[in-house]
Amino acid sequence: MRKPAQRFKDLDFAKVEPRRYTRQGFPEAIYCPGKTIDQIVPIFESLLKGGAPVIATRATADVSEVLLDHFKEATHHPIARLVTANSIAKKSGRPVLVICAGTADLPVAEEAAVTLETLGRRVTRLFDVGVSGIHRLMAHEPLLRRAAVAVVCAGMEGALPSVVGGLAACPVIAVPTSVGYGTSFQGVTALLGMLNSCAANVSAVNIDNGFGAGVIASLISKE
Amino acid sequence: MRKPAQRFKDLDFAKVEPRRYTRQGFPEAIYCPGKTIDQIVPIFESLLKGGAPVIATRATADVSEVLLDHFKEATHHPIARLVTANSIAKKSGRPVLVICAGTADLPVAEEAAVTLETLGRRVTRLFDVGVSGIHRLMAHEPLLRRAAVAVVCAGMEGALPSVVGGLAACPVIAVPTSVGYGTSFQGVTALLGMLNSCAANVSAVNIDNGFGAGVIASLISKE
Amino acid sequence: MRKPAQRFKDLDFAKVEPRRYTRQGFPEAIYCPGKTIDQIVPIFESLLKGGAPVIATRATADVSEVLLDHFKEATHHPIARLVTANSIAKKSGRPVLVICAGTADLPVAEEAAVTLETLGRRVTRLFDVGVSGIHRLMAHEPLLRRAAVAVVCAGMEGALPSVVGGLAACPVIAVPTSVGYGTSFQGVTALLGMLNSCAANVSAVNIDNGFGAGVIASLISKE
Amino acid sequence: MRKPAQRFKDLDFAKVEPRRYTRQGFPEAIYCPGKTIDQIVPIFESLLKGGAPVIATRATADVSEVLLDHFKEATHHPIARLVTANSIAKKSGRPVLVICAGTADLPVAEEAAVTLETLGRRVTRLFDVGVSGIHRLMAHEPLLRRAAVAVVCAGMEGALPSVVGGLAACPVIAVPTSVGYGTSFQGVTALLGMLNSCAANVSAVNIDNGFGAGVIASLISKE
Amino acid sequence: MRKPAQRFKDLDFAKVEPRRYTRQGFPEAIYCPGKTIDQIVPIFESLLKGGAPVIATRATADVSEVLLDHFKEATHHPIARLVTANSIAKKSGRPVLVICAGTADLPVAEEAAVTLETLGRRVTRLFDVGVSGIHRLMAHEPLLRRAAVAVVCAGMEGALPSVVGGLAACPVIAVPTSVGYGTSFQGVTALLGMLNSCAANVSAVNIDNGFGAGVIASLISKE
Amino acid sequence: MRKPAQRFKDLDFAKVEPRRYTRQGFPEAIYCPGKTIDQIVPIFESLLKGGAPVIATRATADVSEVLLDHFKEATHHPIARLVTANSIAKKSGRPVLVICAGTADLPVAEEAAVTLETLGRRVTRLFDVGVSGIHRLMAHEPLLRRAAVAVVCAGMEGALPSVVGGLAACPVIAVPTSVGYGTSFQGVTALLGMLNSCAANVSAVNIDNGFGAGVIASLISKE
Amino acid sequence: MRKPAQRFKDLDFAKVEPRRYTRQGFPEAIYCPGKTIDQIVPIFESLLKGGAPVIATRATADVSEVLLDHFKEATHHPIARLVTANSIAKKSGRPVLVICAGTADLPVAEEAAVTLETLGRRVTRLFDVGVSGIHRLMAHEPLLRRAAVAVVCAGMEGALPSVVGGLAACPVIAVPTSVGYGTSFQGVTALLGMLNSCAANVSAVNIDNGFGAGVIASLISKE
Amino acid sequence: MRKPAQRFKDLDFAKVEPRRYTRQGFPEAIYCPGKTIDQIVPIFESLLKGGAPVIATRATADVSEVLLDHFKEATHHPIARLVTANSIAKKSGRPVLVICAGTADLPVAEEAAVTLETLGRRVTRLFDVGVSGIHRLMAHEPLLRRAAVAVVCAGMEGALPSVVGGLAACPVIAVPTSVGYGTSFQGVTALLGMLNSCAANVSAVNIDNGFGAGVIASLISKE
Repeated sequence: MRKPAQRFKDLDFAKVEPRRYTRQGFPEAIYCPGKTIDQIVPIFESLLKGGAPVIATRATADVSEVLLDHFKEATHHPIARLVTANSIAKKSGRPVLVICAGTADLPVAEEAAVTLETLGRRVTRLFDVGVSGIHRLMAHEPLLRRAAVAVVCAGMEGALPSVVGGLAACPVIAVPTSVGYGTSFQGVTALLGMLNSCAANVSAVNIDNGFGAGVIASLISKE
Repeated sequence: MRKPAQRFKDLDFAKVEPRRYTRQGFPEAIYCPGKTIDQIVPIFESLLKGGAPVIATRATADVSEVLLDHFKEATHHPIARLVTANSIAKKSGRPVLVICAGTADLPVAEEAAVTLETLGRRVTRLFDVGVSGIHRLMAHEPLLRRAAVAVVCAGMEGALPSVVGGLAACPVIAVPTSVGYGTSFQGVTALLGMLNSCAANVSAVNIDNGFGAGVIASLISKE
Repeated sequence: MRKPAQRFKDLDFAKVEPRRYTRQGFPEAIYCPGKTIDQIVPIFESLLKGGAPVIATRATADVSEVLLDHFKEATHHPIARLVTANSIAKKSGRPVLVICAGTADLPVAEEAAVTLETLGRRVTRLFDVGVSGIHRLMAHEPLLRRAAVAVVCAGMEGALPSVVGGLAACPVIAVPTSVGYGTSFQGVTALLGMLNSCAANVSAVNIDNGFGAGVIASLISKE
Repeated sequence: MRKPAQRFKDLDFAKVEPRRYTRQGFPEAIYCPGKTIDQIVPIFESLLKGGAPVIATRATADVSEVLLDHFKEATHHPIARLVTANSIAKKSGRPVLVICAGTADLPVAEEAAVTLETLGRRVTRLFDVGVSGIHRLMAHEPLLRRAAVAVVCAGMEGALPSVVGGLAACPVIAVPTSVGYGTSFQGVTALLGMLNSCAANVSAVNIDNGFGAGVIASLISKE
Repeated sequence: MRKPAQRFKDLDFAKVEPRRYTRQGFPEAIYCPGKTIDQIVPIFESLLKGGAPVIATRATADVSEVLLDHFKEATHHPIARLVTANSIAKKSGRPVLVICAGTADLPVAEEAAVTLETLGRRVTRLFDVGVSGIHRLMAHEPLLRRAAVAVVCAGMEGALPSVVGGLAACPVIAVPTSVGYGTSFQGVTALLGMLNSCAANVSAVNIDNGFGAGVIASLISKE
Repeated sequence: MRKPAQRFKDLDFAKVEPRRYTRQGFPEAIYCPGKTIDQIVPIFESLLKGGAPVIATRATADVSEVLLDHFKEATHHPIARLVTANSIAKKSGRPVLVICAGTADLPVAEEAAVTLETLGRRVTRLFDVGVSGIHRLMAHEPLLRRAAVAVVCAGMEGALPSVVGGLAACPVIAVPTSVGYGTSFQGVTALLGMLNSCAANVSAVNIDNGFGAGVIASLISKE
Repeated sequence: MRKPAQRFKDLDFAKVEPRRYTRQGFPEAIYCPGKTIDQIVPIFESLLKGGAPVIATRATADVSEVLLDHFKEATHHPIARLVTANSIAKKSGRPVLVICAGTADLPVAEEAAVTLETLGRRVTRLFDVGVSGIHRLMAHEPLLRRAAVAVVCAGMEGALPSVVGGLAACPVIAVPTSVGYGTSFQGVTALLGMLNSCAANVSAVNIDNGFGAGVIASLISKE
Repeated sequence: MRKPAQRFKDLDFAKVEPRRYTRQGFPEAIYCPGKTIDQIVPIFESLLKGGAPVIATRATADVSEVLLDHFKEATHHPIARLVTANSIAKKSGRPVLVICAGTADLPVAEEAAVTLETLGRRVTRLFDVGVSGIHRLMAHEPLLRRAAVAVVCAGMEGALPSVVGGLAACPVIAVPTSVGYGTSFQGVTALLGMLNSCAANVSAVNIDNGFGAGVIASLISKE
């Protein structure tokens, strides 16, 4: 048995694992909500020293400012609400498509896209192609056919992954977004639509979880 | 004030209104579940004598047999699970389209279609054109553009009404069906998808309510 | 295949379709929440140039002010929370009734009414006629009988569309509102009531979706 | 402290309280489901000996047969699914109205009505007066105004108690029934409608709980 | 048919019925949330002129101040969040008990108690007697036995009405409150507990609906 | 690292751990539903040979018969629906109380009680003491005060654990049962009531999980 | 535009697409429930003639027997409840792991495994390694590290995919199963656990959807 | 019968029981939300005079400040959001383990830990050992084996109590936390996972109820 002490660094309020990227091919994210800035900074620092990509998610303007002040290596991606560091500069892997249904889904789609880029993937973005104007999507059918994996973000009825899944020859990672009102139930309706997709190549992640979708797409597109 | 006595016939266990068709343009349905055959037969008879179309819904094989035995004017529609009488022979109205996503949605789609035909409408059927094979639907785009109203039945993620709604220039009556498993929740997921449609011309009825959709489409398509 | 380029205008963060009104008889709405003002203005401009009616929904005071500053053609409807332009001046179509159950339902009812007027329809309003004082509604029964379509907005138990549906000889578009407290569940209870209406001519749209109800009523009332 | 032994009889598997009728004005019901016939019979016997009214609810045909075999005093009410004994022969109290919306609600309405009669009340029944044909109810408005209490049973959207509540000058006990399909959710939708009634004089009991409604109405109508 | 004009006063945005107290024995409440102060004042005025008790519920500090400025007859009840006028000075009726489980349930219990007093009833209050210290309630058992009706307010698990219902010889109006956290679901858990009470004399109203409970108790306690 | 091979026995379709009793103080249960009799028998055999107590739960009559045929050491407990073997003969531990609210809760209460006895504990049973007749429970208050742990089973509103929790000086393991109808939601309402108990010493297990409650009570009562 | 006629075969009640395997790398499944045997046979035949793998899911004993009678190429997999044909004989692709938590999850795990094998993949099975005996899983850690993709099936609390996801360097396709009772809500709890996994490489499919998981794993493992 | 007056002190708005600690072994908590500071202070004072431990939970900064100003004996625990007094100085009891899954779960874990310490127990803390890095937990397996009781706090999928439950030889009190987003549903998902634990020694309390878990653990660990 490997010594556990080699596996993680104990910060008292957190047990950080800088080597997870080496072990699993992706880093643990720093999910900022619910953590104080006094907790986020040392966790970021621990991971940064490990040399692997660092990704802080749902970073507010305040958190981002502090991280950029502390760490010159840090980059802020405001639409994606991410602060990243140690991005993999050399891009590799098979083609990844990140799609979203409407303008309001951009933050989630960008979270997935920037996560993929930070992990060294090349991303093609295809935004605002929701099913109420299906011709906008059909115009890009060749793109769908070439992808190794597609991340598809949609709120409201969440129908876009099903249509993409019926056209693409690759796994579709569906990301429900909390976009909508009334019976959209903050993304639950979109999620349910995706889980019941009549296209067999669709799996789903939690509502607004662009980071997770990016990680999975990165693993799938690895050559 | 009209005398209420003229409005309905009191059968003790039921107050039947044979003149609703004249008053509202559609008859009250005899929803069979929860009624005994001893209740269904006199209700059917009361309405039959009124001369307007009669529609008994969710009629089991047993109920249908009894009704056909009692009433020579009755017709059984086994897929639609309807027993009808006094069908309007002369068809009129603007073109109505009844669409369904999958083979298992047929009973609900047929309930809508036969209701429409009983009320004197002409119906075009377009079945098994679900969104996982979007080309099956796109092949019929001209049909969608000509319709005065479309009834669209779908289970699972219920995405078809959104796609139809984005292509058609008419109201879309969406009928969620209880087809699916797991998180389809017996049609709730399909219903939620339809209520959150990004196409603005979609309204929804209760799960598996082909009769109601047929009534509404009949009223809309009336010239 | 028509060239997709003719169908929509690509603004990068949005793919706008100014010709949807010509193609479908109603425009795409600009649903403001979740969009930045820097996204709303160019979308509004793209649609305005198309010449068809433009409708921005759920426009806050801030958004409305900016739109009115940018576009002299824009009109603000504060109760309805709409900013519109290119309204169809010449009214046509069969009579449309917009009804609401209580004073607090006015914003949703007005969203439907103004949408209808912007699309060139004549609207009769009948407000605060909820079922706990049924005589207020019965006093207007003749109005119900003449309508070609009725939009009925109600929160709490959402019973009004059922009563209207039993009196009117036309389709009823039921709009649940988020008015109520406790187990009204922000409109879910009203919606469920409407979907289970014992009147067969009732269909429903999403909670507070006055715009959608207006679009559907406009399509139905088209001569 | 009163001796507990005076309060209840210990049957080992049950602690029966024959004197609850004296103490509270209503007996404890024997709710049959989940009890074996070997448990039901001695409980019935214990209560019967107490001399107060005995009411076994949801009695299946099998259970009813056994009870009638054992106890010559027992009466079976098949529609109400009740077996009763020691019914109060001398009727008293203020006028009670039992109303139901549709034919399928009869079993629940009868459970309430027979409970009331067993407890010595006079009941007026008004059945199948649902809101989709509001004139059927309005024709009986004087009856509503005279009642001391009304029990109103309805499934589907459960709107009838609201309308009755707006017309009657007495408390309305609303009983949601499990009648309906799809999003009626076995009576949950009707219950939610009743709890959100815009009429302030409406309270609700559990789905299909005709017995409870009868008990409460009996207590209210006591002179 | 009575002329509808006699029944209600049309304020355009509201149709007010000042004579509902005469007709039904209780006034319509002015539920303040969702109404502007410019709507509340004329409604209050209309009802005030009618001479019957006036009750505005969920009145914020701001709304209360404006009403007290406008109407010298108005009284503010801050814990109950009510503004009332035309209170029935001469008290009558059978004894009414208003009970609550915990200190945080006071606003709802007071809403019921003040409503009862405004409608001319005498009220006994019994507060903070929740079931985790059952002796606090048992100490008042004689009070429970004498009541003609009991209003019981409780949040969290909502068990108090069941215990009271098992001790009292009168109807129990259970009022779930939104007190609690986590799986209390803002009062839904308390409501469900009350609807499933093993005591047959318990009915329930909407969460936090002290006004409705007061109205019903007033009708029941009327001599 | 201990060799995993020592930890469990691989039956291909199952990996059985006969030494869990030694390791954790309780055996793994054989939950019968979803397992074929051809899977249950070898699992039972593997555990039996280990020498520790064996408990098969939710055993149907068929399964029980087969197990009794195969294993002469097996005992069937029909009310508890358990088949046990290797019961700990020598009883030890602090006093355990198993309580249930109604007659229909017996199967769950017995599952807990027999589990405890199989694990070598002494159990006092107190059945049918639900809160609608609180004196039945109060009569046994001394028993509550002496217990080291109480298992309390209740369906419907699930209020009994709160009342017991307010009287006892020990942990209360609350077991919601699926007893009830309508909004009891097969035990969910009882569970919610227990989780929101105003008594701080109450924790809950899954609906009808008498086995788990028995295991926990056994661990707590261990001397 | 490609001719739609080339895309699908119209059987009237179904529009079958035999070339989907060529187009997308996986065939459309024949989901048997809700289809009559008279519909299943011709659909199976159409797909069989296409030469690509055919997979009929949730095939009952009756359906299986008929299919085996009709088609000599068909194979029945009773645990997986599949009937397959045209299986890809030559296996290829990166290593796939199919894991399940308990014995009762076998049918779902086998549905995934047989789907993968039919599509030409090599599968390693690892069954009954649920988290309550974590050493059973840890004993196979090297297997987890080598996989290109893991399908993980679990019911109850659905925790296994999180643990596997924290150990494996590949995407994890989580399949919630309907195994459990009470608040397992037929697999909803397991699904929710999987969607909220603290391991970022986990995505989920619908409850019991072993087929979909197999398709996705097949696409990911394609070399 | 003991005199009730000896049992509690009536503050009018509250009936306080200072002797509950003596009677039950734990004090009643002062749950601050929903109480005014004018109510909290005298309740605190009443309990303080009783001499037993006093614990005010969910105390905001404002409430804490007032309490510390009023009572020199009071101590503020900011992370735990508790104000305590009369802490039991002499520690006793068997070893208690308080575990949490992530950094954001600290407030709930500390609420449990400080409650235990105030009641005179010794606590070992083990934080941030969630299942996505299972080695962090396995490294502390000996600690798990020695505990008399473990309190395990986790949000998101709530899997940690199952894993701990499979390793520990003691009862596990699972505390779901509201940590997470989307379908974590503010802790409901974590709670459901815990209730469906495949480890039989796990029971659960309400979401974020660290106080209750501390009380139960204190009772269990009492020697």
